[in-house]
Amino acid sequence: DVLVTTGANMVHDLIEALNLHHYKGSSIVNDISLKDDEINRIYDVYLPENHFVDLEEKLQSIFNEFGDERKSIRELLTFIGENLDDKNSILKSAADNDVPIYCPAIQDSVIGLQAWLYKQLNPLNIDVFGDMNEFFDICYSAEKAGAFLVGGGVPKNYIFQSMLITPNEFDYAIQLTMDTPETGGLSGASLDEAVSWGKVGDSAKAVTVYSDATITLPLIIAASKCRLRS
Amino acid sequence: DVLVTTGANMVHDLIEALNLHHYKGSSIVNDISLKDDEINRIYDVYLPENHFVDLEEKLQSIFNEFGDERKSIRELLTFIGENLDDKNSILKSAADNDVPIYCPAIQDSVIGLQAWLYKQLNPLNIDVFGDMNEFFDICYSAEKAGAFLVGGGVPKNYIFQSMLITPNEFDYAIQLTMDTPETGGLSGASLDEAVSWGKVGDSAKAVTVYSDATITLPLIIAASKCRLRS
Amino acid sequence: DVLVTTGANMVHDLIEALNLHHYKGSSIVNDISLKDDEINRIYDVYLPENHFVDLEEKLQSIFNEFGDERKSIRELLTFIGENLDDKNSILKSAADNDVPIYCPAIQDSVIGLQAWLYKQLNPLNIDVFGDMNEFFDICYSAEKAGAFLVGGGVPKNYIFQSMLITPNEFDYAIQLTMDTPETGGLSGASLDEAVSWGKVGDSAKAVTVYSDATITLPLIIAASKCRLRS
Amino acid sequence: DVLVTTGANMVHDLIEALNLHHYKGSSIVNDISLKDDEINRIYDVYLPENHFVDLEEKLQSIFNEFGDERKSIRELLTFIGENLDDKNSILKSAADNDVPIYCPAIQDSVIGLQAWLYKQLNPLNIDVFGDMNEFFDICYSAEKAGAFLVGGGVPKNYIFQSMLITPNEFDYAIQLTMDTPETGGLSGASLDEAVSWGKVGDSAKAVTVYSDATITLPLIIAASKCRLRS
Repeated sequence: DVLVTTGANMVHDLIEALNLHHYKGSSIVNDISLKDDEINRIYDVYLPENHFVDLEEKLQSIFNEFGDERKSIRELLTFIGENLDDKNSILKSAADNDVPIYCPAIQDSVIGLQAWLYKQLNPLNIDVFGDMNEFFDICYSAEKAGAFLVGGGVPKNYIFQSMLITPNEFDYAIQLTMDTPETGGLSGASLDEAVSWGKVGDSAKAVTVYSDATITLPLIIAASKCRLRS
Repeated sequence: DVLVTTGANMVHDLIEALNLHHYKGSSIVNDISLKDDEINRIYDVYLPENHFVDLEEKLQSIFNEFGDERKSIRELLTFIGENLDDKNSILKSAADNDVPIYCPAIQDSVIGLQAWLYKQLNPLNIDVFGDMNEFFDICYSAEKAGAFLVGGGVPKNYIFQSMLITPNEFDYAIQLTMDTPETGGLSGASLDEAVSWGKVGDSAKAVTVYSDATITLPLIIAASKCRLRS
Repeated sequence: DVLVTTGANMVHDLIEALNLHHYKGSSIVNDISLKDDEINRIYDVYLPENHFVDLEEKLQSIFNEFGDERKSIRELLTFIGENLDDKNSILKSAADNDVPIYCPAIQDSVIGLQAWLYKQLNPLNIDVFGDMNEFFDICYSAEKAGAFLVGGGVPKNYIFQSMLITPNEFDYAIQLTMDTPETGGLSGASLDEAVSWGKVGDSAKAVTVYSDATITLPLIIAASKCRLRS
Repeated sequence: DVLVTTGANMVHDLIEALNLHHYKGSSIVNDISLKDDEINRIYDVYLPENHFVDLEEKLQSIFNEFGDERKSIRELLTFIGENLDDKNSILKSAADNDVPIYCPAIQDSVIGLQAWLYKQLNPLNIDVFGDMNEFFDICYSAEKAGAFLVGGGVPKNYIFQSMLITPNEFDYAIQLTMDTPETGGLSGASLDEAVSWGKVGDSAKAVTVYSDATITLPLIIAASKCRLRS
């Protein structure tokens, strides 16, 4: 019903939606050479720097059509999704299927950098707290609520904190993560800890899978498809 | 010169500034009992739920005086700091010393929840991208730039991405973290990876300390004070 | 061709081979209560303490038939395997199929404790270095050598160090682990590091999968069976 | 009173005792070049391969004087220590101060490889289970018992399993580790888990510090020395 994500995830989705690509490289590499070759590294994924030129062009033209009224981050992301053609894009699929995307830290991404650039010469008015109401209304009205967390960070907490202002709690929660509780950070925090806050219900079905989500997520999707078919 | 942080860090600072406290507990505990006792757990730290009642009162009165003009997140945080009395508060110290605080995901915190509550009945107009310009100006004008990272998440990336739009790079970088590169996430990403992006300079002095920051940060502060004295 | 493992793995295999079982529990539990209930915990696996009574009886009778000549650890483990009935047992399967099992730290297990107990009244003569020669002969004579590592510890190093005394190197290596290199320990050490030692060849096909082996091992086995069938 | 350790730790101690050294390098390096330069890498520590030539000469001469009677691993390590001159050596200090060193997986080290080499032409008779009795006698007779664990692996379990065969339990336990419980392995297992087994007492003072032991161990030593002085 709802996707909460990071700006970076949306940037990588946009790049692929523009028919540009990420490449499988290696994490053992000379990063100074990569820089000389204008390749940005994300662990073992390589991203040519010139992709960001095409992305700039696309985003500036989208911002240009977006208007200068006060809008929310969710509205901006829906508008971006509506202006894409790639049916595999998360942003486009979400827009097409009326799935709102919430992204509290959108500034912290190339979308944010492009918005800053656009604002040098043009008006853009996005309200930080503008989409919290619609998000909480969805949480509030849910009869049963489930959270499916891939990784942690801002999205994890933003999803969970929604229950602090409703009488509800999550009835189901799955988290796929490599982060562990011992650091004391929210990303690795156990789902039991969330029970103390009333974010996850005390009789919720909740499970954490400490493993690489690039392995466990496809497994779960495949298993779910398999069960739905039978 | 600049602090980039999370909403949660500022919330915990606010709670202490109100003379309310966090308590040392244990991570091995029955979270359902804690919930019944209205104690929220953060790994091995306990936080009485009623602290949030006092925090609500304080934040609502601050929002009430803040006005309804379009402002930035940084301006909101400076204003909150100016309305505190505790000289040990990070928010107050930053306001007193003209250190700007940037917090891209402020919605993702109890400050965000209180802002939502306030907006149910009152106008509040905070521009998502409103303080990026002043932050980038500071980064742009730095002769030498250093990043001191405690943990990762949004603050780490937000600090580093500032260099993507300047001709500069970080000349110094220290990260204190328990996150490792192998997950592929930004929090654990090596400072070498940041070199490929031009965030950290290829001749920068950069070091990652994989260890608990509650141990390493005080050590570094103590050592720095010691050297400054001699 | 060869299995290198820990004493603990063999103990848990023995317990199952005696038709005793390990139970799925939870890692969030009061360990004092578990102790009162005579249940030993291994993260989220529960092991009734009285299983060790049956194991003692079995091991003492096996030691009793083993004789007092000087033998190697491998010979002891083969003898134990020959005295089991459960065809699913690793020890028995290895004995039946002439797969030698090497276990350098066998003292560090309940097999070790039972050996100590037996030696209080009976002679038992196991040579620490007694089976290194046959192990190295196997490594030496291999035309192509591959290492499949599930976890790290003593078995990982013992497998790799075999190549230090041969002109060979591993041509293939897979490691399934949750341990990362940043601690500096051998368990998480990268396969690249092993290249510097001449343990893994510089043109070897070598890959590390940072993920839970209870997920990745069955996946690999299933995929291998699938390919073999077609 | 007792040191339980790995063969590798003793090998690195021996190398330093021979006035050979380990060098501070980097973990980001081309391991094929290192191999060509005959430098072995241990994460960010470099060890010239020719150190092992000197070590071989030393160990072969020690084995030669050790005799062919059946002895224990502890006796072998004491004998090695007695044949060293470096007063900073762990092996020598332990021998000089009658601190027994137990090392269950001694085969899994260059000491093991050298023992294998020696046995090609000479008799050497080391009993796997030969020193368990004296170790358990020390554990048994302790009025109060404390375990100080730096890292995990075989030494951690070997220390803890000693209490399975005594009516005692550890009254104090400190573990300095980067390993976390979520993998299910013994190295990261919590001290609470050890309570269920009766290894650590249910009213023991036990604490785990999840942090780099190269930082925390010197801190603890310095603090202890400081307290002892006052």
